[in-house]
Amino acid sequence: MAWEGIKAIFEPKSVLLVGATGIKERPGVISPALFTSMISNMSSSFKGKINVLDLSGRLSGAIKNLKDVPKKQDLAVLTAPPELALKGIGKLVDRGIKAIILPAGGYNDLQLEQLFRATVKRGVRVLGPNASMGVLNTENGLCTAFERGLMPVRGKVALISQDADLGAAMLDWACFHGIGLSKFASLGDKVDVDEVDLLNYLAQDDDTGAICIYMGWIDEGRKFTDAIREASKRKPVSILRGISKGTGRDEIFDSALKQAGAIRARNIEDLFNVGIALALQPPMRGDRVAIISNSKGPAMLAAGAIERKGLKLAVLSEDVNKTLKSRYPGIDVNNPINMMSAAGAEHYEFTLEKVLADPNVDGVMVINMLRSRILKPEDLEVVAKATKKSKEKPVVDVTVGGEDHVLVRGVLRERGIPTYDLPEKAAQAMKALYQYWQFREKVSEKR
Amino acid sequence: MAWEGIKAIFEPKSVLLVGATGIKERPGVISPALFTSMISNMSSSFKGKINVLDLSGRLSGAIKNLKDVPKKQDLAVLTAPPELALKGIGKLVDRGIKAIILPAGGYNDLQLEQLFRATVKRGVRVLGPNASMGVLNTENGLCTAFERGLMPVRGKVALISQDADLGAAMLDWACFHGIGLSKFASLGDKVDVDEVDLLNYLAQDDDTGAICIYMGWIDEGRKFTDAIREASKRKPVSILRGISKGTGRDEIFDSALKQAGAIRARNIEDLFNVGIALALQPPMRGDRVAIISNSKGPAMLAAGAIERKGLKLAVLSEDVNKTLKSRYPGIDVNNPINMMSAAGAEHYEFTLEKVLADPNVDGVMVINMLRSRILKPEDLEVVAKATKKSKEKPVVDVTVGGEDHVLVRGVLRERGIPTYDLPEKAAQAMKALYQYWQFREKVSEKR
Repeated sequence: MAWEGIKAIFEPKSVLLVGATGIKERPGVISPALFTSMISNMSSSFKGKINVLDLSGRLSGAIKNLKDVPKKQDLAVLTAPPELALKGIGKLVDRGIKAIILPAGGYNDLQLEQLFRATVKRGVRVLGPNASMGVLNTENGLCTAFERGLMPVRGKVALISQDADLGAAMLDWACFHGIGLSKFASLGDKVDVDEVDLLNYLAQDDDTGAICIYMGWIDEGRKFTDAIREASKRKPVSILRGISKGTGRDEIFDSALKQAGAIRARNIEDLFNVGIALALQPPMRGDRVAIISNSKGPAMLAAGAIERKGLKLAVLSEDVNKTLKSRYPGIDVNNPINMMSAAGAEHYEFTLEKVLADPNVDGVMVINMLRSRILKPEDLEVVAKATKKSKEKPVVDVTVGGEDHVLVRGVLRERGIPTYDLPEKAAQAMKALYQYWQFREKVSEKR
Repeated sequence: MAWEGIKAIFEPKSVLLVGATGIKERPGVISPALFTSMISNMSSSFKGKINVLDLSGRLSGAIKNLKDVPKKQDLAVLTAPPELALKGIGKLVDRGIKAIILPAGGYNDLQLEQLFRATVKRGVRVLGPNASMGVLNTENGLCTAFERGLMPVRGKVALISQDADLGAAMLDWACFHGIGLSKFASLGDKVDVDEVDLLNYLAQDDDTGAICIYMGWIDEGRKFTDAIREASKRKPVSILRGISKGTGRDEIFDSALKQAGAIRARNIEDLFNVGIALALQPPMRGDRVAIISNSKGPAMLAAGAIERKGLKLAVLSEDVNKTLKSRYPGIDVNNPINMMSAAGAEHYEFTLEKVLADPNVDGVMVINMLRSRILKPEDLEVVAKATKKSKEKPVVDVTVGGEDHVLVRGVLRERGIPTYDLPEKAAQAMKALYQYWQFREKVSEKR
């Protein structure tokens, strides 16, 4: 039943949106405007059944009385402030709801206790209170946030944020930068559902390839790191911590997180950059990276970044060197491989295939310069094609720039290749792919 | 005369574009298509006089013979390949041209010698050969690049790139991310004009507030670092190096660069992030930073970043604390100052003014959360207003996110406030503002 409740939070067949359009707008209270904004979000994207209950009885088309609410709905989103919410919540539970999301905060201790008894004690899972960004699921269109325009494209990165504001900011980031998400949740005050529940759920979620977490604080260190370790055995977990200054206790916790397999991110962008690589590409089974480019400048920056991250520039095998040299006279075959300005789709496909097949190479950074080149963004489909043939080795792509990067991203991300606008960001992602492999190796040795 | 030539490269009154529309397209040669693209770029933006000379005599409206070229033009851009260029270059010099840009490469040693004798020896300054991205000046619309759509908005950052490809990528970056540039130049093979010439010129250029340099390699270490030092006395210089692995010699050079006042950037984004702060804001005369926010999450990330960069969180004076507390009961006045979700323009203006006036504060990071807030991007005009009153202390702005950041950037950058999409990037910029102050102090002590 408990498990079913967590599932109901992300994969409900039916959702009941409960609010009051007649309450006064004031800080800390979910306003009628926000309630109608949530209804609009859900109506435009959710594939399941939606019922709306307006406790003020004003909204046209909405259910006006609790007793008219259809029985056994999966999920209720209860936007009313504490007093009002607590009045009706018992009756909602009576009607067989499996899970409840509480976006509003402001519960005092007594009210929290009442809430707990009325719901969790009776087997209903609760996300919140104060889970103001709620949950998103790009697969079924579930979006319990009030904010408009924050549904990212579908993808394989799951995102958990303890902080609702940063959750909103991160979703804004993901939408703008084309980061594909599977699911999102903001936790709020955790009367019930916590990071551990979400980790357990996301670890078995087939739509999720990697889990990214922003954590401002964590109460139960050990329980959390255990959950990280278990999740990491199945899929990579990356963490951004919002502590201001490292104390001794923090350092111990950081070290425990690392032991548990968590890959540490330095900022929000890094969390996503690492997340998409971990979600889309296999772990990197060694530290030897090959760089394939059509321009020398960015390849030099890439080589520097690879080495600064503690990875190595692969020494290509003699065979591969010869094959490339004879097919493309005039190119620079020493890693970084510079195929020069005349390189097109054929160069990229052939070279990437040969380099991925080289036993001296563990992963490849592909660099595409579009300016002053014959290369077109759509030519880069071949990068995804060649990568698919290899399977076991990761490939990431870099187009240095602004608009140029966006064009290439449009071609490659949906084809499963992580793309970056700077080689340094790609190098950081490759390091994470190697770190995850090292963790998996360590775990399998212990077995 | 030499100086006049450098000035003619960036501030010509008249430009002669020389090419051949009849030559065959082949790699390494500036094609007719690129030549016409450059003509189109110049026609659409350059405010001075443009003449076109088509050595193939095909282009309608163009001058067909060298002898018909008007005398004493400031600048010629000669796109023809070496043999063709060398044929006509002496006659161009005869006609009183002050400077020549050579975008095409491919000169052999003998040709380089011929080029030198025909031009530099006769007092004509030459940028190139192989200066394929040429120069840009956002003030007069000069754009000698073939690439289309690479004219950034007008601003105070000057950019020099040794590498033409990275130069193009950086311009693409600047255009996409709204980085305002004053001037741009790509150096190429440096038969004459080099980094030192450009540094000397840009150091006295009133449109330039800071100089950003990408360098892949430098021949004359000492001459270069001396020029950096002299330029740094007048305005900040930030440098990104494209070396792959640090050798002993590199480390000595790095240390010499630092001694000369150069502020080191870690990647292209960092170069611009630091560049806009250095160009738009005064140096930071101490390491004590105040954070003003309307949300706790990003303020925590900012506080962490400030400390990791080696800066300090300012301890606000009792006066300022009291004033803020009594005016806005319920806000968190301990730095980071959290004005909470109801903060609007008035909160930002009043708080920023008070904090800037606090003698315990050397600089301020302003953080704006738009999501779930009443704050609108246009409210943030007050940040520029309050900053203007202070003058001596730098202010940078952060809106965590994608679209949200772009909205705020649209309001603040043109008003002289550097904006960032992550607090970590803003912290790096503030560190640079402090480093530049430290260099200036050191230099003035020596006097």
